[in-house]
Amino acid sequence: MPDGPDFHRVARPTTFIRAPRLSERLGAEVTLATETFQITGSFKFRAAYRVAASVEARELIAASSGNFGQALAAACRLFGKRCTIVMPAGSARVKIEAVCAAGGVVELVDTARTSRAERVRRLAAERPNAYVASAYDDPLVIAGNATLGAELAAEAVRAGGFEAVIAPVGGGGLSAGIVVGLRAAGDATPVWGAEPALGNDAAESLRQGRLVANPSEPATLADGARTLSLGAHNWTVLRTGLAGIVEVGEDAIAESVRLLFSLANLKAEPTGALAVAALLAAAGRWRGRVCCVVSGGNVDPELYAALLAAPGAPPAP
Amino acid sequence: MPDGPDFHRVARPTTFIRAPRLSERLGAEVTLATETFQITGSFKFRAAYRVAASVEARELIAASSGNFGQALAAACRLFGKRCTIVMPAGSARVKIEAVCAAGGVVELVDTARTSRAERVRRLAAERPNAYVASAYDDPLVIAGNATLGAELAAEAVRAGGFEAVIAPVGGGGLSAGIVVGLRAAGDATPVWGAEPALGNDAAESLRQGRLVANPSEPATLADGARTLSLGAHNWTVLRTGLAGIVEVGEDAIAESVRLLFSLANLKAEPTGALAVAALLAAAGRWRGRVCCVVSGGNVDPELYAALLAAPGAPPAP
Repeated sequence: MPDGPDFHRVARPTTFIRAPRLSERLGAEVTLATETFQITGSFKFRAAYRVAASVEARELIAASSGNFGQALAAACRLFGKRCTIVMPAGSARVKIEAVCAAGGVVELVDTARTSRAERVRRLAAERPNAYVASAYDDPLVIAGNATLGAELAAEAVRAGGFEAVIAPVGGGGLSAGIVVGLRAAGDATPVWGAEPALGNDAAESLRQGRLVANPSEPATLADGARTLSLGAHNWTVLRTGLAGIVEVGEDAIAESVRLLFSLANLKAEPTGALAVAALLAAAGRWRGRVCCVVSGGNVDPELYAALLAAPGAPPAP
Repeated sequence: MPDGPDFHRVARPTTFIRAPRLSERLGAEVTLATETFQITGSFKFRAAYRVAASVEARELIAASSGNFGQALAAACRLFGKRCTIVMPAGSARVKIEAVCAAGGVVELVDTARTSRAERVRRLAAERPNAYVASAYDDPLVIAGNATLGAELAAEAVRAGGFEAVIAPVGGGGLSAGIVVGLRAAGDATPVWGAEPALGNDAAESLRQGRLVANPSEPATLADGARTLSLGAHNWTVLRTGLAGIVEVGEDAIAESVRLLFSLANLKAEPTGALAVAALLAAAGRWRGRVCCVVSGGNVDPELYAALLAAPGAPPAP
């Protein structure tokens, strides 16, 4: 592993919040495990650190319009590595600025003419020594996210056990890491996934017992879950490692963002609110101590304000 | 002290967040000490617990349209005491609901006909055994808030010292408690107050060396600082205990709410953002490690959405 700071010196342990008012509303004793205060504002830093620390390459390339790009840029900076993030030209300015602020180089691509994957392939061909990092299909990603599983196991001991841990599912790197980390710590707590019903490929995969893909990128409010399918490495863990998946509607996602705001003072991005949305969608399934993982907090102020102001209708993504 | 749970078993230690992006924007190394996840969402629980635990009375009465009411109701419930909160009839429904959710009895008063103080006096006359609790003029309030000072002192040791601790100033109970708690722990860090310029009675008091009152309740966005003057007990501590007060404009308060949202993923109420606003207002005064106390996070979604959506013009309170 190249020289660089120790993970536990630079990363923030997840922030546990017991939320009595939210618990009363949801009918279960909710502990939030929030990654919104993690470096770069989401759990993605855990995997990004592991990738940047582990690979030999001095330059990393990734396609990301969201949290992984910021996280990889920040991790690469810690190791003195160059980081290029390929983003759609139409990305929100705040997201582009966040990657730059974290020390990354942004390559904008006109996705109407060239796909992001194509641009990444071309960049990789030009720079044969660079490592192309995947946000959710890499054993290093699972290993990085397993650090969160270890923290959840320690909190389970302090709290006297959890009936369930619920985590958002997009590409599956977070939930796979949590399963691996919990089990490595000797903790058998059931892990549930929370997935947007609009893009329910993971739930469908569990039902069919094989990796199933969405026909196209799902237009869910939970932009961190707009993935075509689970990563293959994650599927290997999740096919037997998950207790199940709760499919949640868009209204429940929006309502969960509002509940976290009003009853827990927590700013979460829509993807980060998926686990709480699962408690809304599967009301009554859990009555005891439940740990909801809030995966990140990076959301545009315009979208967040619209979510707060319009309880009836979540804005289209 | 009556039977009841130990403070450290029920209260949440303050949540420290190192905020690199906010630090870069503000030109100082900012650590947030946020009370937004405290029981009932603000630091007020610290004082409320202390009052409920210390007084003999089985019934407490207070006038509050904000955080103290919720906090006192929650504290009284822990000690099996009755709690009545006098609120203006026009109070936001969420605030009334929050007091009820915490177990308090709400007495609405038509403030056009009867002042809240008058109603409290009448209630106290009807119930001679009840204790009338003040949100910010009671030695018990200072003692309760001193627990936060002790936590700040411990964090200062971990962090290698702070150049300054900055805290919001309304009635002065928070800053007085912080001064007392820090000094009791042998910590000499300068404590600065952050006060809305619209209601700068505390700054004026320090300048004149005597307790000065605002001519009327200041119409600041920071509703926790709409006080006429410092509490007399707090003034005794603050007249020599504060290093100074930064007076901040309404634009800086609104901008700080947005900066905490965008650069630290933290939902703060306007009063809670005052310390960060002081860093904006006194740009360049501090360049080292500074601890900003975020006093609370309870803000109506409508107001918060308006603040996020309208960077130019903070809405009138």
